[in-house]
Amino acid sequence: MFQDIRIVLINTSHSGNIGSAARAMKTMGFTDLVLVDPVDFDPKHPSEVSVAMATGAADILCGARVVATLAEAVEDVAIVMGASARNRHIPWPLMHPRQAAGKAITVLKNEQKVALVFGRERTGLTNEELSMCQVHVHIPTNEEFSSLNVASAVQVLSYEIRMAILDSQDKLDAHYSGDWGVSWDNDLANQKEINGFIEHLERTLVDIEFLDPTNPRQLMPRLRRLFQRAVPDKIEINILRGILNMVKRNHDK
Amino acid sequence: MFQDIRIVLINTSHSGNIGSAARAMKTMGFTDLVLVDPVDFDPKHPSEVSVAMATGAADILCGARVVATLAEAVEDVAIVMGASARNRHIPWPLMHPRQAAGKAITVLKNEQKVALVFGRERTGLTNEELSMCQVHVHIPTNEEFSSLNVASAVQVLSYEIRMAILDSQDKLDAHYSGDWGVSWDNDLANQKEINGFIEHLERTLVDIEFLDPTNPRQLMPRLRRLFQRAVPDKIEINILRGILNMVKRNHDK
Repeated sequence: MFQDIRIVLINTSHSGNIGSAARAMKTMGFTDLVLVDPVDFDPKHPSEVSVAMATGAADILCGARVVATLAEAVEDVAIVMGASARNRHIPWPLMHPRQAAGKAITVLKNEQKVALVFGRERTGLTNEELSMCQVHVHIPTNEEFSSLNVASAVQVLSYEIRMAILDSQDKLDAHYSGDWGVSWDNDLANQKEINGFIEHLERTLVDIEFLDPTNPRQLMPRLRRLFQRAVPDKIEINILRGILNMVKRNHDK
Repeated sequence: MFQDIRIVLINTSHSGNIGSAARAMKTMGFTDLVLVDPVDFDPKHPSEVSVAMATGAADILCGARVVATLAEAVEDVAIVMGASARNRHIPWPLMHPRQAAGKAITVLKNEQKVALVFGRERTGLTNEELSMCQVHVHIPTNEEFSSLNVASAVQVLSYEIRMAILDSQDKLDAHYSGDWGVSWDNDLANQKEINGFIEHLERTLVDIEFLDPTNPRQLMPRLRRLFQRAVPDKIEINILRGILNMVKRNHDK
């Protein structure tokens, strides 16, 4: 699905931004870059600043295709999504990046191409260019400061599409443990082990006279909540019980 | 909730990246920037390149607080989330940015602070710094090219937190039409209007002998599907019927 995403930059003024955009898209796994009439850039002789900004993505930068018009850039594309900085006079199907990514996935699954189109640094896309898109995408920026760098916009939209692709391939939640869970190094403790530790803790606290059994108040419920919430693994329970044993031994001396 | 997010940059080498990060966070509505031991940056005398990269976010840049250690930077913070580029030897609660944003929201709702911590350009956060975080966040980059610019990482995490905040305030889907819907300029056509148009279209196609009523095949079902799918508004139906009237008038001449 990654090869069917095309990034299209229109009339970019600063070649450094083209380099940054190439880097941004490559970090998200996309390689198809098309430049519509760039102001001062030739992939055969890329400027120094563009290569510097691209860092390890110079292959994307130098492999970019240059065309004269948006129409040429998206000829073979099924769904054209235009990044729009503001609301236009005529409303258009307007999506935030996550909605757009969901839409893109339905097309990518069908092995058809999706283009993400980004306009000029200062003025964005023209109304005519926006009218050639099926979908307008707006990143919900701060209303008082919506000046998103073009490479940052490429980064955010590429990120959303990558997240949607990974999710559609069940590769997202499976690779992150969240609070704990998958890919944890040790098995989690079971409830017998946790209860054994809590009882051990309570005995020790009584022994060292931190806990008064005739007036226990909320001490043990609070400690139990803490350790339940942390969801300790088996090794951690062993370490904690080892500490309790040592506390007892010191106390008994 | 926006004022309770802190962006912490550790040991950043290039002041241009600090400027870009300031811009990235401001576009997402965040203003609290803390720099831990920056290599070559003083907010009182910001470098030219840092101001250039910040564009309209020079206020954030010059308002940044500089401290010596991560511990100082997050003293008053409840949840510290460290951006981690790779898996560490000891697993840690590891979240992708969307999971982390969901976690952050639960704390922000309680009016407590959340810090997002970003490490050095080349080497990221040290193991000691990562051990001071409750959560590690990993942006699921391309495994063959995971070299995300630090300001791009700030952009992506800030974007996810902004999306989560807007969503929690019901400000997200309400402001995007999706395919059509909210904030559309005209009322959508109702089914009587759509059916009236489809019948009008069919009569016209018979009149101009494009449609043979004795052998209609799949023409009308296909046209109906197209116009149903587009969910036309009332004005669009009027325009389409105006065209049909004109076709008929031309035909009758």
